Amino acid sequence: MSKTLADIGEFGLIRRIHEFLKKEGFQAPEVILGIGDDTASFQPRAGYNVLVTCDCLVEGRHYLPDYITPSDLGRRAMAINISDIGAMGGRPLYALVSLGLKSDTPVADVEAMYHGFCMELNPFEASIIGGNLTKMEDIIFIDITLIGEVKQGKIMLRSTARVGDAILITGYPGQAAAGLHLLSRSQSTEDLREHPLARAYISPSHRAKEGWRIGQSGVATAMIDTSDGFLGDLGHICKESGVGAVLIQEKFPISEDLRQTAAQLKLDPYELFLQESDDYELIFTCSPDKVSQIRSVIASVSDVPVTEVGKITEIVGIIQLRLPDGTKRRIQPTGWDHFGK
Amino acid sequence: MSKTLADIGEFGLIRRIHEFLKKEGFQAPEVILGIGDDTASFQPRAGYNVLVTCDCLVEGRHYLPDYITPSDLGRRAMAINISDIGAMGGRPLYALVSLGLKSDTPVADVEAMYHGFCMELNPFEASIIGGNLTKMEDIIFIDITLIGEVKQGKIMLRSTARVGDAILITGYPGQAAAGLHLLSRSQSTEDLREHPLARAYISPSHRAKEGWRIGQSGVATAMIDTSDGFLGDLGHICKESGVGAVLIQEKFPISEDLRQTAAQLKLDPYELFLQESDDYELIFTCSPDKVSQIRSVIASVSDVPVTEVGKITEIVGIIQLRLPDGTKRRIQPTGWDHFGK
Repeated sequence: MSKTLADIGEFGLIRRIHEFLKKEGFQAPEVILGIGDDTASFQPRAGYNVLVTCDCLVEGRHYLPDYITPSDLGRRAMAINISDIGAMGGRPLYALVSLGLKSDTPVADVEAMYHGFCMELNPFEASIIGGNLTKMEDIIFIDITLIGEVKQGKIMLRSTARVGDAILITGYPGQAAAGLHLLSRSQSTEDLREHPLARAYISPSHRAKEGWRIGQSGVATAMIDTSDGFLGDLGHICKESGVGAVLIQEKFPISEDLRQTAAQLKLDPYELFLQESDDYELIFTCSPDKVSQIRSVIASVSDVPVTEVGKITEIVGIIQLRLPDGTKRRIQPTGWDHFGK
Repeated sequence: MSKTLADIGEFGLIRRIHEFLKKEGFQAPEVILGIGDDTASFQPRAGYNVLVTCDCLVEGRHYLPDYITPSDLGRRAMAINISDIGAMGGRPLYALVSLGLKSDTPVADVEAMYHGFCMELNPFEASIIGGNLTKMEDIIFIDITLIGEVKQGKIMLRSTARVGDAILITGYPGQAAAGLHLLSRSQSTEDLREHPLARAYISPSHRAKEGWRIGQSGVATAMIDTSDGFLGDLGHICKESGVGAVLIQEKFPISEDLRQTAAQLKLDPYELFLQESDDYELIFTCSPDKVSQIRSVIASVSDVPVTEVGKITEIVGIIQLRLPDGTKRRIQPTGWDHFGK
């Protein structure tokens, strides 16, 4: 039988994690002190601002163990934080990992989780410099604080979109929502794990590399990542910027996979694109005459598609959808409220 | 009936927290971006290193709601993180608060918790710049990441104690353990909440102000806060520094409250001093000829007692206790392993 946390104890686990990170993790030269003292410490770079974000995954709430392997869970937990740093035009540097684990959690699962963290961090030469372990009775949680940097003056906000700006989106939002539908309607999730839409949900591809380049270019006006769904996050841009938006439905990037699966599930692919979906794509805005420049900037680091789907308007807080027949209707996110009745 | 999170929803709660912090929280000028975008952002000071730590309190595991009010819980959760920053010789600056809350949590309780956070942060002109909210089914958790700064070259480590150094301790370790004994043996915890030892457990006094001054003085060689009990944390210093220690029992600072309560509970006050206790005092070491200088440094900012309780020895990893009759015995922490069988 495989070893559990009860077998090796808290200090045994800390030692294992430490050894694992020495082997698989990136060792950043600016880290003065990593795991093993009262705090971690690093030397920030002159001319850069520090970015910091935290996001938590709770078993049964944000993920189901049947759907996701420990390694993918680690990737997912780190990727959603990396996505936030990327959406500010920043680069991830240091992570603190606070884990709530059970006594019967296999040690191999924890190591697989750390393998997932490192898979996401290493391409950025980012490292885990601290954390915390808590014993839980019934459920696991993974709470990550990710620290990054952004060049002074290059930070990308959600509050600075301008009337007349083009609205662009990376990738294919809605794929993660369709993947979740597939998984939750299936009897055996095992067979589905490699389905491209299930992968889009289980192991989302953040666009931090693209976000960093968009920030560097200096031509985008506002940016956000899609963690509340396209419409919800565009809504945040509109609200914080004091503007509105009009979207052109026929321009929406709907992948062939999404189109087929939507038909099979009897769902509207445009609704999947617009509503709650954990895709971690980027929505950004720029002056219409900068669209081709920004496309080239992204194309220089990535082959992710970039689609112009609408315009920023002056009708504060209102998002309109233009249908193929030319009619317009007002649309709203159906995003769920986590504590709502 | 008082309003719950289910009544006001997630976005309602975020708005309330935001408004509360505008009113009661410190507004730091170096904060470029606080709550409300994908990440927070601040400008680090030149000549300083960044410190970062995280610590989590879980209902039923680290605290019992019957023992502690929401405001004290907020204070405690923040104080234990502030203590870590202080133990590095640093100053706390920015907190991220990740909360797991239940739908039936009263809004007033969450506000009281934030009141507790601000009570601890405001004296340092430190502020909450971000966080996360997660819905939990059965238990609440409070996971705080605290960021601080320390002047380059003034960081205090646990790994740098030297043979011959004096070992000093602030305050009265063991009081929190005695307080927990009192609370757990009592039928009605309500009457006990104001007992000084119960207070020592419920609302521990970190020594961050003192730690910062000790670091500034440049004469201490190593420092740690007592979160695993005096012996456990002195053990960390010994292990990381590759040294040992001898302690003189008759020098241990045992408060009158602790002496009386230990007698009443039929417990050994010296054992309470040595073993697992959540006091958040500071253990630090310095050359014997610097003891009076360091006492003056601390006395200039605080009236907390500082007691010399032993010496660092060359017997690696061994801690000895000298009893009043002159005999010595080897002692070890009984600290519990969180995942152990």
